Amino acid sequence: MYGDISAKAAHMLGQPAVLDFFAKLIQRVSPKSYQQALAEVQVSQKFLENFCGDQVRFLARSFAVPGNHLGQRSNGYRWPYGPVAIITPFNFPLEIPLLQLMGALYMGNKPVLKVDSKVSIVMEQMIRLLHDCGLPAEDMDFINSDGAVMNKLLLEANPKMTLFTGSSRVAEKLAADLKGRVKLEDAGFDWKILGPDVQEVDYVAWVCDQDAYACSGQKCSAQSVLFMHKNWSSSGLLEKMKKLSERRKLEDLTIGPVLTVSQGRSQPFFGGQLTPVTTEAMIEHMNNLLKIRGSKVLFGGEPLANHSIPKIYGAMKPTAVFVPLEEILKSGNFELVTKEIFGPFQVVTEYSEDQLELVLEACERMNAHLTAAVVSNDPLFLQDVLGRSVNGTTYAGIRARTTGAPQNHWFGPAGDPRGAGIGTPEAIKLVWSCHREVIYDVGPVPESWALPSAT
Amino acid sequence: MYGDISAKAAHMLGQPAVLDFFAKLIQRVSPKSYQQALAEVQVSQKFLENFCGDQVRFLARSFAVPGNHLGQRSNGYRWPYGPVAIITPFNFPLEIPLLQLMGALYMGNKPVLKVDSKVSIVMEQMIRLLHDCGLPAEDMDFINSDGAVMNKLLLEANPKMTLFTGSSRVAEKLAADLKGRVKLEDAGFDWKILGPDVQEVDYVAWVCDQDAYACSGQKCSAQSVLFMHKNWSSSGLLEKMKKLSERRKLEDLTIGPVLTVSQGRSQPFFGGQLTPVTTEAMIEHMNNLLKIRGSKVLFGGEPLANHSIPKIYGAMKPTAVFVPLEEILKSGNFELVTKEIFGPFQVVTEYSEDQLELVLEACERMNAHLTAAVVSNDPLFLQDVLGRSVNGTTYAGIRARTTGAPQNHWFGPAGDPRGAGIGTPEAIKLVWSCHREVIYDVGPVPESWALPSAT
Amino acid sequence: MYGDISAKAAHMLGQPAVLDFFAKLIQRVSPKSYQQALAEVQVSQKFLENFCGDQVRFLARSFAVPGNHLGQRSNGYRWPYGPVAIITPFNFPLEIPLLQLMGALYMGNKPVLKVDSKVSIVMEQMIRLLHDCGLPAEDMDFINSDGAVMNKLLLEANPKMTLFTGSSRVAEKLAADLKGRVKLEDAGFDWKILGPDVQEVDYVAWVCDQDAYACSGQKCSAQSVLFMHKNWSSSGLLEKMKKLSERRKLEDLTIGPVLTVSQGRSQPFFGGQLTPVTTEAMIEHMNNLLKIRGSKVLFGGEPLANHSIPKIYGAMKPTAVFVPLEEILKSGNFELVTKEIFGPFQVVTEYSEDQLELVLEACERMNAHLTAAVVSNDPLFLQDVLGRSVNGTTYAGIRARTTGAPQNHWFGPAGDPRGAGIGTPEAIKLVWSCHREVIYDVGPVPESWALPSAT
Amino acid sequence: MYGDISAKAAHMLGQPAVLDFFAKLIQRVSPKSYQQALAEVQVSQKFLENFCGDQVRFLARSFAVPGNHLGQRSNGYRWPYGPVAIITPFNFPLEIPLLQLMGALYMGNKPVLKVDSKVSIVMEQMIRLLHDCGLPAEDMDFINSDGAVMNKLLLEANPKMTLFTGSSRVAEKLAADLKGRVKLEDAGFDWKILGPDVQEVDYVAWVCDQDAYACSGQKCSAQSVLFMHKNWSSSGLLEKMKKLSERRKLEDLTIGPVLTVSQGRSQPFFGGQLTPVTTEAMIEHMNNLLKIRGSKVLFGGEPLANHSIPKIYGAMKPTAVFVPLEEILKSGNFELVTKEIFGPFQVVTEYSEDQLELVLEACERMNAHLTAAVVSNDPLFLQDVLGRSVNGTTYAGIRARTTGAPQNHWFGPAGDPRGAGIGTPEAIKLVWSCHREVIYDVGPVPESWALPSAT
Repeated sequence: MYGDISAKAAHMLGQPAVLDFFAKLIQRVSPKSYQQALAEVQVSQKFLENFCGDQVRFLARSFAVPGNHLGQRSNGYRWPYGPVAIITPFNFPLEIPLLQLMGALYMGNKPVLKVDSKVSIVMEQMIRLLHDCGLPAEDMDFINSDGAVMNKLLLEANPKMTLFTGSSRVAEKLAADLKGRVKLEDAGFDWKILGPDVQEVDYVAWVCDQDAYACSGQKCSAQSVLFMHKNWSSSGLLEKMKKLSERRKLEDLTIGPVLTVSQGRSQPFFGGQLTPVTTEAMIEHMNNLLKIRGSKVLFGGEPLANHSIPKIYGAMKPTAVFVPLEEILKSGNFELVTKEIFGPFQVVTEYSEDQLELVLEACERMNAHLTAAVVSNDPLFLQDVLGRSVNGTTYAGIRARTTGAPQNHWFGPAGDPRGAGIGTPEAIKLVWSCHREVIYDVGPVPESWALPSAT
Repeated sequence: MYGDISAKAAHMLGQPAVLDFFAKLIQRVSPKSYQQALAEVQVSQKFLENFCGDQVRFLARSFAVPGNHLGQRSNGYRWPYGPVAIITPFNFPLEIPLLQLMGALYMGNKPVLKVDSKVSIVMEQMIRLLHDCGLPAEDMDFINSDGAVMNKLLLEANPKMTLFTGSSRVAEKLAADLKGRVKLEDAGFDWKILGPDVQEVDYVAWVCDQDAYACSGQKCSAQSVLFMHKNWSSSGLLEKMKKLSERRKLEDLTIGPVLTVSQGRSQPFFGGQLTPVTTEAMIEHMNNLLKIRGSKVLFGGEPLANHSIPKIYGAMKPTAVFVPLEEILKSGNFELVTKEIFGPFQVVTEYSEDQLELVLEACERMNAHLTAAVVSNDPLFLQDVLGRSVNGTTYAGIRARTTGAPQNHWFGPAGDPRGAGIGTPEAIKLVWSCHREVIYDVGPVPESWALPSAT
Repeated sequence: MYGDISAKAAHMLGQPAVLDFFAKLIQRVSPKSYQQALAEVQVSQKFLENFCGDQVRFLARSFAVPGNHLGQRSNGYRWPYGPVAIITPFNFPLEIPLLQLMGALYMGNKPVLKVDSKVSIVMEQMIRLLHDCGLPAEDMDFINSDGAVMNKLLLEANPKMTLFTGSSRVAEKLAADLKGRVKLEDAGFDWKILGPDVQEVDYVAWVCDQDAYACSGQKCSAQSVLFMHKNWSSSGLLEKMKKLSERRKLEDLTIGPVLTVSQGRSQPFFGGQLTPVTTEAMIEHMNNLLKIRGSKVLFGGEPLANHSIPKIYGAMKPTAVFVPLEEILKSGNFELVTKEIFGPFQVVTEYSEDQLELVLEACERMNAHLTAAVVSNDPLFLQDVLGRSVNGTTYAGIRARTTGAPQNHWFGPAGDPRGAGIGTPEAIKLVWSCHREVIYDVGPVPESWALPSAT
Repeated sequence: MYGDISAKAAHMLGQPAVLDFFAKLIQRVSPKSYQQALAEVQVSQKFLENFCGDQVRFLARSFAVPGNHLGQRSNGYRWPYGPVAIITPFNFPLEIPLLQLMGALYMGNKPVLKVDSKVSIVMEQMIRLLHDCGLPAEDMDFINSDGAVMNKLLLEANPKMTLFTGSSRVAEKLAADLKGRVKLEDAGFDWKILGPDVQEVDYVAWVCDQDAYACSGQKCSAQSVLFMHKNWSSSGLLEKMKKLSERRKLEDLTIGPVLTVSQGRSQPFFGGQLTPVTTEAMIEHMNNLLKIRGSKVLFGGEPLANHSIPKIYGAMKPTAVFVPLEEILKSGNFELVTKEIFGPFQVVTEYSEDQLELVLEACERMNAHLTAAVVSNDPLFLQDVLGRSVNGTTYAGIRARTTGAPQNHWFGPAGDPRGAGIGTPEAIKLVWSCHREVIYDVGPVPESWALPSAT
């Protein structure tokens, strides 16, 4: 049945008018350009296409292995949890909740979904579309509430599994409250390393600009720190990045307000307390960085002008601050430099041939391990960096990026048994089902069987 | 390398003298018959055989899917966590710690292992054997401590993952303390249902006896409650079970002391407080059950005689108490009846054709979902019961049992995202590795590429 | 790209007007009822849905295993053959060629397709639809020719792989001509066994009627012989089957002409010579069967009346002939009884408890092993029969059938390395791709490497 | 059971005395150095280790997918063929027959094995060892005969599948005789391409020497032609290769007699007629090559001196002949240059940046596609060459080789549906089993079911 629903919904969502409707609806609540909003709808549409026809049943594929005697066979099934919960943030109002919701349903669970209330209208419309495509009304619940109410509901309803996408602080609280019955995709301080082989400078500069500043840096996969091999210094890369960042403007939302603040402000979300990311807060953070010896602003560093963005939100030009590598690694500095600013802000540094160790040490000391990029086509360099890092979604090669994950590969953190994934059949199976083994043992009891001694 | 170590260790452990040494060593610390102890060593030996040669590297098998353009490819890897911890109980002093330890090592983790101190001598000897087979001394740590010290160590060392096998109470505490970075295999109140098709009564009676009373009922898979279709009443099954239970004797440890108590007694284990399972405690529990209307002792129900088992341990004849199904379901009664007694004790009940609903309701209301058995060869009956239950390891068919899981199928709970598994390649991969996605994107950048607008 | 083509084509084919158009077009060239023709289109539509979105790229999923040293990794890929050929018969003018064609394209081959010329108009229309959905004109070739020309073309063009669906005689000739570079799905003399447990007689009778006579028996999966356990004799099954067969009428094509003849008539197809299946031929075959001691006509056995079907085609009422089991097994008789009549004709026999061996012997002696059905819910009976038979697509259980394979499971013969499959991802991968192993070994060469001696 | 046999045999074969016995036995019948013979035994031993314990049953892993209604489930099994045949050549008297034999047995077939009679004593000893480890005598047959008798046996016994490893000419004849019921691993004219990035010249020279001349070039994976990017010309590579080739000497069999001749001499093998590879034949071939404009002997080119090798065998120094690339591609020349000489003989050529197309064209025009190597760490170069070639076992990277396949990766040709593989679980499953689908459909028939109209 869900194959049919997906086929219908994929077709409907693929109609130009519907694509446009959802893209604009996303823009109304989440500050991103039309292109970015459209891409979110398209990825969601492709995902639905992926689970047309019999592909939902193929997700429930089991395996069997012969047993020890005639009539015995072990079967490994993917089994649903039953009642589950899904909690998703403001930055991808359609893609994250839709993909997780459908995954939960495909595997046979009964989900309750809560989307950040500022943006929940998008999913509300999507659910209407799904109902129209045949989704039975009783198969899922949709709840609009603040975090505190949701937290209470979770503790009382005690779902078998809760998927949470959002900030690390809330994630940790939930994990303790729910005693680990969670899968988490929390924010990341995502790094990119440019390797020794300088190539395709224009292309790499463009990817850096998009990774750091698209959606005003409010993707959990946004590039937060750039480690640049010295060979790139004379390539003009930084100048190109500066120029590209200056193309961004408020009118078309290629740069826009930073929203994280409102959550923290309105109430303790799930009991956690988030730091508001106002313009002042970002400037203050930048000034703290600039106190580090050798630091400097590469570009940006100023508030946006001529706008009516409320003060509780952030409004900042795309900004890059250079900090020397040796300084980054000093304790004290390290925590400051790797503090995640969920906005259009990145740190840039440089390393020489013999400093790769320091770079890898820095990457390992970071807490979250979501996305990362190693921009190089040198197989030995790639092998070295990939073998010693653990980020869940790592891009490698001269075209590597940190953002822009489509529906056709896994996206999620690694190194944590609570880590969730999104997008692929593997992600759906991991997050929304558990292993169940059924051993058939139908006999016959051999004619020669005789009662053994007790043991 | 671990393929070679496993091959050597499997061969060494397969030598009759070594098998015998370990079986007797297990008997010294864990009250079970020679046959049961030997089986534990044999399963461990077979497991090592399963991961000879290249089979360890085959565990690390990854997959790749073509990307969106030339040069792009997504790879899904199984990745180790790094530093991990393993905590295992007294009842299987070799099998559980060895299988989990090797699984952790196969996937590339660095484990610290703690076995219940009463029985840790078995693993201590095994580790010496592994060292002799080539295991590098620095690849793992072995710690002997009480639970409180271990708890402190975990909180300070903060391992990326902790595998815990043991009581539910401690499991829940650990899950909260470690914020869910755990995989758990906790105790189970395991049920068996005899279906409407009466067949092979002698065989089924023997399996029931072994499931309930082998190792004095101290297996996490031991049969705790038996739901018997009325058709079996006139089959003589209960009489046969009684007769079989009376074969058990202290001399050959086919019945023996119940050890759970000592843990709870000596100190708060991990901060939890376990109920001692002394003889008195078991008798008291039985008397409480007998207060339920219609209850009766089917057999056993008395302390063992002529023994020198210390009072802090339990010493009870194999016991079965009948409780009517309708009474079991009454709240108040339900909690009492489904209280797990980690000893030679089971509840028996009966159901008629139209009471299957009640049986399934009872099974669903139980908390833990470890093993279960549906003794029937009727495919529609099996389908009905299997489709509405969720136990992680469920046996189905006229030869179904609850205990005796070998090394060739998954063993573990279901319905809980924190659930661990043991035994198979799937279990090793689930417990000891996480998904990591690496997307190669080496280009070439198409010659026609031109700088797009910012988005 | 093929994901998009499939999504569009699935949607287009799913439009009621298009479904109806193709169903009626099939009826114009292939004698089957509207329901049967419609089902053929629907299965094709579902198949296309199954390979929407990224599912085509998921078919090309590869795997990798770590090597012996740093930098080494073995990769197993599915690789296309390149230029391939597809030859399909008259009975499924849309489903067989479409599924095989798309499979070949999905895996990256360049196919030339030949459909039996009497029915090739259906695929000709379908290819136009595919072109409209984005299929590049140069990705495949479509050829209309008789068998002799096609045979010559194959020998000259020497495709890397040829998929042939059709009669065994032609299949064997092609296999020799092309030196085994073929995958074959040839006709089958398909059997059904009714087990000892008599249940759901009405349902089973209906399935027998459909399996034997739908599409006038011209499915390669049609039921050719029915082995009935004696317990069914008194169940009224045969009477019910008789009654059901009498519902069939020419007006709605629930019974219709037998077409195989025309192939054989017009020219030596691929050099083979097919026996015409005219009405006389079928009557003669029946009369030969009736010479066997104990044989009798159960129902049918007469030509259709009041029709204008040309004499070169067959026109026969749905017919069942009973032959005693012991007689079937006699050599001489055996070849006669198991001669495939590609028309509305089946043999029925009966066996007692102790004759199961004979039944299994008969099944084993048949040459082709395409479909089979074991109608029983007795797990030990199923185990026995399944364990000793080898048919590629075997249905088991009280609802077992021989025909009606949908798009969601494999359909094809077993026991022959040249056997093809159709329908599922596994079938596509087996038929349309081969294994290719690429071992990456990028180094580094260890610094300690020194020139070894020659070996 | 076969897991246990493998475990025992692996252990036994791993004993130093047994390893040594088999290595020397191989040397007695097959001209290779002790190291090469030892490696053959070690690979065989590792292979047996890989299928210890439950790994044999894991090969028979099946899968299941839910069906269209309650009670329906499709299962995909790997199924044995039944009676099968294995025919293997002289160059690997232990590894090839043992791996294929065990694969056939693991999957449940009943094989008859024929090894080239000159070397069959090795397998004869191995089978005795297997019997000692528990292999039932009736599970396989071992036949000693010449090719003509074997050919006759195959035609009469009509095995369901025949695995043939040996010359292409015989392979093609067998494929036609057995109408394609074969899997083939025929000889290859294997190429190596050195990419533009010159690195590790000493290492690459050593690998070239081993690939071309180990076992006197009598491996089906031996390097027959070397395409060298111009950048390597000044690297001293050819000089190093010359020097390395001159280390080889008859005393330790690092160079030795070429045996292919004897087969052809004694009788028409399977009806085919093989060209004797005598010393004269090789010299004549070399002289023909030298008639091509621009050709020259790089090293070798002379008969071995001071030996007692009978004239019917070949005895030649390791030889390399340079032929210009443009000349190779000319028709007439091409057939000559790519004629496989199963001896210590290779062709070397050179290409410039803009001649890569010509190299790839040459590779594509070769008939067999067994092994190949692309020696480069440039990902775009690798991508280009790998994407346009089809060899079944292709090595890529600076450490790439053509020979030396171990037991842990697939070895076999690609691009041919009759292609066999050897070594891995995938190879065993492909060669020794076929897909069988069993669809369980146990009901229940819905209560609402009513007889539909006939279709």
